Amino acid sequence: MQTLILAVNKPALAYAKAGVAFYEERLRPLGKVEIRYVKEGSANDVADAMLRASEGYVRIAMDERGMNWSTRELEAQWRSWQMDAVKRVAFLIGPADGHTEELRAACEMTLSLGRHTMQHELALLVLLEQVYRIHTLLAGAPYHRD
Amino acid sequence: MQTLILAVNKPALAYAKAGVAFYEERLRPLGKVEIRYVKEGSANDVADAMLRASEGYVRIAMDERGMNWSTRELEAQWRSWQMDAVKRVAFLIGPADGHTEELRAACEMTLSLGRHTMQHELALLVLLEQVYRIHTLLAGAPYHRD
Repeated sequence: MQTLILAVNKPALAYAKAGVAFYEERLRPLGKVEIRYVKEGSANDVADAMLRASEGYVRIAMDERGMNWSTRELEAQWRSWQMDAVKRVAFLIGPADGHTEELRAACEMTLSLGRHTMQHELALLVLLEQVYRIHTLLAGAPYHRD
Repeated sequence: MQTLILAVNKPALAYAKAGVAFYEERLRPLGKVEIRYVKEGSANDVADAMLRASEGYVRIAMDERGMNWSTRELEAQWRSWQMDAVKRVAFLIGPADGHTEELRAACEMTLSLGRHTMQHELALLVLLEQVYRIHTLLAGAPYHRD
């Protein structure tokens, strides 16, 4: 399953840049996870760019008001996408002020990384680590603990 | 209010080390947030070391099974500690297998950074960013967005 992560602007904070590179490196052998950045702009411009970039994907809006799943629940969702032969899933991390209503409406679901507000570069890092963790679970590797 | 964050071992991942240094730097002028590391060991040894290090503090166990508060709710809790003249609060980030029952029982509450399992160095980073965010809220600074 092709996985796309969309975020606004490349990380500017050095630690976030290093963290994203770290998980990208680990995910690279799997060849299926791609991060793309859209340019900062008005909420509508960002939404339009994200919707264009995720055309043909099952879209997941990342938002602290969404469902906060455990890693095992996200893994179960992942397996169910695979069983349903879903080919492309995109995770959309909103700009600082959150996603527009139009973008939310175009998404299949809204997932949360917790109810707390996070710097969006840090949110990207947390999401990437989840995606990496799910892949180790799917591969039966011992990285995860419950 | 003196804030202590306890974690197991100094971060080893380069990005986490950089991220912790980044938020420590930002929190330093406030002079009230300290991170201390206890040595890796058996669950009981870690719990004992954390309980000794946090003697005299209101203890918060960090665990994905705890309450996941919004940043505004955590800020409200912080203000209520200040009103109650609480002088010391310690946040305890457990080892990979989680906290012991004994440690949980010695804590005032269990807080969660979301139901998903996180690499514990990343959890430290997310907690630090929350603490930084709360301090900007308490100072009336514009970092936060709801």
